[in-house]
Amino acid sequence: MTLPEDRAGEDAVVTIALDVLGGDAGPEVVADAALQVLTSQPGIALILVGPSELTRQLAADRSISDRVEIVHADSAISMDEDPVRAIRNRPQVSVNVAAELVHNSRAGACVSIGHTGGVLAAATLTIGRLPGVTRAAVAVVVPAVEHDVVLLDVGGTVDATPELLAQFAHLGHAFAQALELSDDPTVGLLTIGSEPGKGDALRRLAHEQLLALPLRYIGAVEGDDVAIGGKADVVVTDGFTGNVVLKALEGAAINTATQISKRYADPAPALEVGQSFAIGAHAGAVLLGIDGVSVVGHGASTAGEVAAYVALAARVVRHDLVARTAAELSDTNQ
Amino acid sequence: MTLPEDRAGEDAVVTIALDVLGGDAGPEVVADAALQVLTSQPGIALILVGPSELTRQLAADRSISDRVEIVHADSAISMDEDPVRAIRNRPQVSVNVAAELVHNSRAGACVSIGHTGGVLAAATLTIGRLPGVTRAAVAVVVPAVEHDVVLLDVGGTVDATPELLAQFAHLGHAFAQALELSDDPTVGLLTIGSEPGKGDALRRLAHEQLLALPLRYIGAVEGDDVAIGGKADVVVTDGFTGNVVLKALEGAAINTATQISKRYADPAPALEVGQSFAIGAHAGAVLLGIDGVSVVGHGASTAGEVAAYVALAARVVRHDLVARTAAELSDTNQ
Repeated sequence: MTLPEDRAGEDAVVTIALDVLGGDAGPEVVADAALQVLTSQPGIALILVGPSELTRQLAADRSISDRVEIVHADSAISMDEDPVRAIRNRPQVSVNVAAELVHNSRAGACVSIGHTGGVLAAATLTIGRLPGVTRAAVAVVVPAVEHDVVLLDVGGTVDATPELLAQFAHLGHAFAQALELSDDPTVGLLTIGSEPGKGDALRRLAHEQLLALPLRYIGAVEGDDVAIGGKADVVVTDGFTGNVVLKALEGAAINTATQISKRYADPAPALEVGQSFAIGAHAGAVLLGIDGVSVVGHGASTAGEVAAYVALAARVVRHDLVARTAAELSDTNQ
Repeated sequence: MTLPEDRAGEDAVVTIALDVLGGDAGPEVVADAALQVLTSQPGIALILVGPSELTRQLAADRSISDRVEIVHADSAISMDEDPVRAIRNRPQVSVNVAAELVHNSRAGACVSIGHTGGVLAAATLTIGRLPGVTRAAVAVVVPAVEHDVVLLDVGGTVDATPELLAQFAHLGHAFAQALELSDDPTVGLLTIGSEPGKGDALRRLAHEQLLALPLRYIGAVEGDDVAIGGKADVVVTDGFTGNVVLKALEGAAINTATQISKRYADPAPALEVGQSFAIGAHAGAVLLGIDGVSVVGHGASTAGEVAAYVALAARVVRHDLVARTAAELSDTNQ
């Protein structure tokens, strides 16, 4: 692939549209996150997207005024709404207004801790998929022992096809490059056993597809490789398995840390590390295959976690995630 | 269900057929395990199954003579053999001789660290499945935070049907009873999200099947519930997902323990707990739905781990795993 020439400099200010609504604990958490970002990250400007009066008040309460703009949005999508229908009927919902700001290039990325399905629907309907992408993927970065690992899909597409897993390999490859995990990231297929022919029907067919791609495909990786790392930079799976694994990693981190903490006079460091590895629910997930950057986090995220999602969004904008993905897909489809 | 009346007393000696061959590090590891068992577990007698001269020598080297018998077997199944064909062509392979001892009631259970496929084939072909069982399941006990959790299937059947997941629910329920996790264990379906209608096609159909069973089915559980526990005593899934999750738990335990160990002056306790939770590869797995008890462990197991598999086998024999399973299946099929 050829690298895009118009890449934004490391120093340019990146503007992030931040959805004020949708968090479980109310908009204050997101406002606190905005304050953290604006105080500690001079390279990021924010557009706060929410009911204008409320949002202005939240900003005023925190003396937020520099590098911030407010754009009005009506309401959030509720958990029991069909997200696609909600966005079609009420385009003024906050997650969709944030997506529109990305689509209109007023923001480099949007970040939300609302309904994941809503974020995915807004990204697909309003920002749009890149040419050649049939389904967007949801990707997370797992802090493994050896080095970070990109895991996708973690919940976008639960019934995947072999062709879709091959597409995810390209999306994950471009994402790992944008994260600077490697110049030419390796790709592995999450399965059971490392012998050819192992795995279920989907994996056996996907393996053949992946072998044919112009990528450094290393073949099978197993569940432990996700958290230990060092085998593949990008681990490809379907959204069902990816989501179950991500949650399993979270549970195991908490379990292990809890037990270890009982073995020391001071349990705090063990529990702290456990929490920081309990990424399952609290990883900022990046939507891939979209013609813009969209990051979604758990509704129960803390202000610090929301600030980390904003930083992650700015990082992949700076490193040309979308242009890299488009270039890789266009090289492949030629 | 009615409890079988002829249950073996807690104090009766249980005889375990122990496959001497098949371990990665040679038969010495299994012989060391035998010595550990015979020294520390007066309620267990062993039949060592392996080439008679070699096995006699291994026993003599360790001064093993009480509560032990030696039964000759030719060889092990190698990793690149088709296990079903190997057992049909060479019934004298050690894993099959061990299974025959169970089938002939000379042993209460067999334990092997050979080829998992070989153990499964020997159990199915030589011991046989219980009436009504279409596929044996491979189950492990996960030491979760709240209490132990039974996870199945972890590799027996990678392309499962909704009907098979319902059958696994019964097998896991009887196993959890035999482990005395609960008088009436709860059963959960491993999926993503807790709302009805979430999950892939297999899970949506399996959910309907599970609702119709005479079991305490609590509905969806997520990946983190496996390691944290407290939600369901038995977690049902297909062999692909179960195996990936089991390995993911192992990787996450090692990852978390490694990071925590760096935060303390004495890293040893953290790493020790990490190893003990790294159950993925080293859990003794019990085959369910078989008309006898068969336990399989990883080829790279240590002597201590093999001794633990023997203890697990004796525990489920004492608590009538097979009779409980048969009674539960017969109650269901009436």
